[in-house]
Amino acid sequence: MTAEIITIGDEILIGQIVDTNSAYISKELNKIGVSVHQITSIEDDRAHILQTLKEASERADIIIITGGLGPTKDDITKKCLCEFFEDKLVRNKKVLKHIEELFDKYIDTPISDLNRDQALLPSKAVALHNEFGTAAGMWFEDHGKVFISMPGVPYEMRGLMESEIIPRLIKNYSRPVILHKTVITYGLGESAIAEKIESWEDNLPRDIKLAYLPNLGRVRLRLTAKGENEERLKNAIEDQISKLHKIIGDIIYGYEGDDPVEVVIGKMLAEKNWSLSTAESCTGGRLASKFTKAPGSSASFKGSVVCYSTQSKIEFLDVSEELIEEHSVVSAEVAKAMAQGARKKFHTEFAISTTGNAGPAKGGSDAELGTVFIGVATPNGVTAHQFNFGNHREKVIGKSVNKAMELLQENIIKMRDTI
Amino acid sequence: MTAEIITIGDEILIGQIVDTNSAYISKELNKIGVSVHQITSIEDDRAHILQTLKEASERADIIIITGGLGPTKDDITKKCLCEFFEDKLVRNKKVLKHIEELFDKYIDTPISDLNRDQALLPSKAVALHNEFGTAAGMWFEDHGKVFISMPGVPYEMRGLMESEIIPRLIKNYSRPVILHKTVITYGLGESAIAEKIESWEDNLPRDIKLAYLPNLGRVRLRLTAKGENEERLKNAIEDQISKLHKIIGDIIYGYEGDDPVEVVIGKMLAEKNWSLSTAESCTGGRLASKFTKAPGSSASFKGSVVCYSTQSKIEFLDVSEELIEEHSVVSAEVAKAMAQGARKKFHTEFAISTTGNAGPAKGGSDAELGTVFIGVATPNGVTAHQFNFGNHREKVIGKSVNKAMELLQENIIKMRDTI
Repeated sequence: MTAEIITIGDEILIGQIVDTNSAYISKELNKIGVSVHQITSIEDDRAHILQTLKEASERADIIIITGGLGPTKDDITKKCLCEFFEDKLVRNKKVLKHIEELFDKYIDTPISDLNRDQALLPSKAVALHNEFGTAAGMWFEDHGKVFISMPGVPYEMRGLMESEIIPRLIKNYSRPVILHKTVITYGLGESAIAEKIESWEDNLPRDIKLAYLPNLGRVRLRLTAKGENEERLKNAIEDQISKLHKIIGDIIYGYEGDDPVEVVIGKMLAEKNWSLSTAESCTGGRLASKFTKAPGSSASFKGSVVCYSTQSKIEFLDVSEELIEEHSVVSAEVAKAMAQGARKKFHTEFAISTTGNAGPAKGGSDAELGTVFIGVATPNGVTAHQFNFGNHREKVIGKSVNKAMELLQENIIKMRDTI
Repeated sequence: MTAEIITIGDEILIGQIVDTNSAYISKELNKIGVSVHQITSIEDDRAHILQTLKEASERADIIIITGGLGPTKDDITKKCLCEFFEDKLVRNKKVLKHIEELFDKYIDTPISDLNRDQALLPSKAVALHNEFGTAAGMWFEDHGKVFISMPGVPYEMRGLMESEIIPRLIKNYSRPVILHKTVITYGLGESAIAEKIESWEDNLPRDIKLAYLPNLGRVRLRLTAKGENEERLKNAIEDQISKLHKIIGDIIYGYEGDDPVEVVIGKMLAEKNWSLSTAESCTGGRLASKFTKAPGSSASFKGSVVCYSTQSKIEFLDVSEELIEEHSVVSAEVAKAMAQGARKKFHTEFAISTTGNAGPAKGGSDAELGTVFIGVATPNGVTAHQFNFGNHREKVIGKSVNKAMELLQENIIKMRDTI
């Protein structure tokens, strides 16, 4: 089963929005054994939409389309689908009722004919219930291919994928198994790793593919296996990973599941009923916003002080003025004091802190551009590490966040193993 | 001049990363009058890359390719470009020198042959200097078309766009003018707006296009004009906007430039030498991380307390325990006290606060799911507003951030106008 994704909307082509939908859809399809071979983004242009639908249907079994389902004139996806399938729009009563209910409940303005017209769907489409919005999803079957159309609003699209589309695909099609396992390494660049594992890589079985994913201080190695027998594939991957361990075990840090590292950390903390706080200077709230993104995060994450000003480090985190004067605000000593201050004042088991020069200007300290100190406070004490994350603001912030997560995870594991 | 973007990498097609490069490239090209008509993402697969290059070159004048330039075996873009142009790889001395310098300066591991081989480029390519990385950009001209290849690492790609590609395109090609102006509205849904402005929309001149961009509580209306004469286009857009003002002036909030609202706010504050802090509960650091993303933000942004626990609201922000008991933690009173606490303790002119139930679980308060209070403290006093942002965590957080920015901007403007 192969799929293609078509995202429709002028706002994508002029760079007004980033298309995050495609990554989500690809990931979810992959999990159930459907490979995405192409993602195509095009404008709200009739001829281009029709041409792209035609080309995609010649290559793929499943064509997933997002965008262009709004009530206004610039949204023409439904019209194009009618033309493509030689169909016409008919009113869907169930969809109309849902639209009326949403207006009743959540929307202040009265419902209009344009809103009601969102219940007009191509007659050949099966309507898919969009819990969070007024534009229904649509499912077409044509000459053995499936065409699925969804609104472009990310959470509406995700709701439809979860409750309607994935279950339908699972039910209706037999699919191969696709397994990914991603090994996280720290400490060597991708080319240095590649040289070390060259002969291992050359001897990988044909159904296992390797990819290098270097990103802000760590290199992830992704192994992908595709086949019929899940058990066999799993064993084949594990077998290769144990061989890999013998070569570069010293830099393998862990494995990446579906969960991002902040969610993994949240779960590790929740298991032990431990809690976390952060004290952020150069990461500016990025750590906190990562930890609080996931539902239920308040179980372990208690809060953060983002202290961009020196004064706030003193007032909120009890960092002593003398310490700052003696060592400067970008120093191991201040990183430690910040972590300890957060740990104490948020009453948490763990706290992490960041202080550094993200650039591009040098800021108030003498520290070189890119210098960052990360502090970790635990019930066992406090440590700080110095890094230089290079010459680009985004890189410095991103690497600081990754490194802080890594150090935190290390410390949680250590703590877990000692008690 | 039309362009297409091709992004290459298995990690995009399995959803392991979101392709943010295409949006950036599209936006930058648009600014200089180059329209992007299609974005295509494909795997590191030889046949698919060659086919996509061929198809894109049949449709567009400029073909921009990102990804697949790493030193490891899974990266095959250079090989494919050689095949496409019937070319071969030759060593580029200048690029080699740059790679050696980067290793010398920033990378701990010794340079290897694989790293040195990144200086092997197709002989027909002009090498483009990549300041931030080891993979050079490449520029090919072939049968009147331009092919540009860049690494997929976002900040490396952006460096190349800025210093090499945009200047070269400007120098070598005459391009039309493309102007966008985006009107920001609050308070009406897109269909309600569409009905009000229907006859205005129907009478737009042929060279002006309208798009509706609804997003988390606000609807943006984007007008796009394309032509030869910048002055004339500007006037035509302004003319239409003043007509629009007569119809829906009451819900027009402002205009969107290239800067996101947090940068606009940062500039407004810096102009007056005013400062800002935030106290975040349900937005969990998202406000702070937005404000601190931009270089130079420390001039106006002083910090944030992310208080996920009730205790931290009391300890860090001096919110009184009795107040919380009396009104609950999700209340206008607590939002006000949080904003005042932040304003006072960070010593800033402005402070904004959020407290609410983002869901999916109901949390410690009785407030309905989706209920959010936003507080704004200014030198003139403090206010709080209540909202219900619906039934989805991401929507609630996103809308809270947008609304908080809106209220803050309103208050800054008010303050600016009264003194």
